[in-house]
Amino acid sequence: MPEKPLILVTNDDGITAPGIRTLISVMNEIGEVVVLAPDSPQSGMGHAITLDSTIYCDKVTLEEGKQVEYRCSGTPADCVKMAISEVLDRRPDLVVSGINHGSNSSINVIYSGTMSAAIEAGIEGIPAIGFSLLDYSWNANFEPVKEDVRKIALNVLERGLPDGVVLNVNFPNLDDEPFKGIKICRQARANWVEEFDKRTNPQGKPYYWLTGKFVKMDNGEDTDVWALENGYVSVVPVHIDLTAHHFIQTLNSWEF
Amino acid sequence: MPEKPLILVTNDDGITAPGIRTLISVMNEIGEVVVLAPDSPQSGMGHAITLDSTIYCDKVTLEEGKQVEYRCSGTPADCVKMAISEVLDRRPDLVVSGINHGSNSSINVIYSGTMSAAIEAGIEGIPAIGFSLLDYSWNANFEPVKEDVRKIALNVLERGLPDGVVLNVNFPNLDDEPFKGIKICRQARANWVEEFDKRTNPQGKPYYWLTGKFVKMDNGEDTDVWALENGYVSVVPVHIDLTAHHFIQTLNSWEF
Repeated sequence: MPEKPLILVTNDDGITAPGIRTLISVMNEIGEVVVLAPDSPQSGMGHAITLDSTIYCDKVTLEEGKQVEYRCSGTPADCVKMAISEVLDRRPDLVVSGINHGSNSSINVIYSGTMSAAIEAGIEGIPAIGFSLLDYSWNANFEPVKEDVRKIALNVLERGLPDGVVLNVNFPNLDDEPFKGIKICRQARANWVEEFDKRTNPQGKPYYWLTGKFVKMDNGEDTDVWALENGYVSVVPVHIDLTAHHFIQTLNSWEF
Repeated sequence: MPEKPLILVTNDDGITAPGIRTLISVMNEIGEVVVLAPDSPQSGMGHAITLDSTIYCDKVTLEEGKQVEYRCSGTPADCVKMAISEVLDRRPDLVVSGINHGSNSSINVIYSGTMSAAIEAGIEGIPAIGFSLLDYSWNANFEPVKEDVRKIALNVLERGLPDGVVLNVNFPNLDDEPFKGIKICRQARANWVEEFDKRTNPQGKPYYWLTGKFVKMDNGEDTDVWALENGYVSVVPVHIDLTAHHFIQTLNSWEF
């Protein structure tokens, strides 16, 4: 582990969210911290990048602390790209994203702006972790997660991660109960069953709001959803190679 | 294969793009076609979904043909959700996305709106294919790809795909040369090295455009990039389980 590791902090709830402020305070104890995060909430942005419009990025001072901070008009993935190629004077030793207000377990990893920032760092070959707490409220209590955030970050700094692998860490919302421990998991098979809420605008034109219900389709006790439901912190290693290697042999037998 | 399969067609270049018009014409020969696609270009949208704003979806007639069409203000992933839960009266037998104007091979699969639509269908348990041609121009010649698009779609309709697996199909741009064949591949390891183009707006404030260079980091001859560079159509099976299963055992040995 470098003596004074350089840590990039970002998120998808926006730079003023209590979740990222907690993450900054924990990282300030570990290394040299640069924050480069979206200027507005970016939940559900998936791995979007900004191709058709301009991006602003300004140095700001939002609160006391050793960290240096930048506020960016781009997506979480843009923020990581901007930090690495424009703002930082050396490659960061670690990228951390979050702490997200709400779950990124299971299939949510695919829609998550928080995880897209971590995955972007993984694409760049930099160890990265996305952190999320299963509490959507702005005033969620992040105090109980600090110690495990610190431990997991220190582990990654010391041991590294394989090329193209990042960690997806979710904390259950247990109020004041202590976590039962940290559990290494696989991503649960699940989906969202959409319920579009159809309304009519003042001009008489129909429009929709996207809403949905989370449906677990997996009873395994080795999944992140199981761990979280049972009071554990879930850690899923996530990789950027989306190839379904197990299906290549079968596909080779198809006749085109 | 159902006698008259129901096929949902979408894309990320917008409903009027020549790529999707080609895809519609091929699918009209195979089954009953419903088009539900973005009303404007959505390239680089990744797996974004619309949580904080409203979505419009209107029935339209854009050209002659058997297809029924809807134009939607949402992202490609929104379009698939909207079609399945609001518009279609039964589950589609196949979802096809594209034909994208430009490559979605290698790491581009993660940024791709085209592939996010196919992946969204995979999450819903519906067989799906994303098609892309390595030609970014609006007036790209899609004529040479039609026969293989048809063959691959018919194969998927007949044989199905495993749960949570979709296909990422890319066509090289060979002008009038015939393709060398269809090759089943894995996703090449590569990334984009960003070069932010920094400018100053009329008010004197700096802003950026995101640009970049594609860097291949993989010399394997079993990758999609290799296949495309050598005149083959690449087919990569892509799955929605992002777990890095190979790293779970090592992670279990870490001490937290």
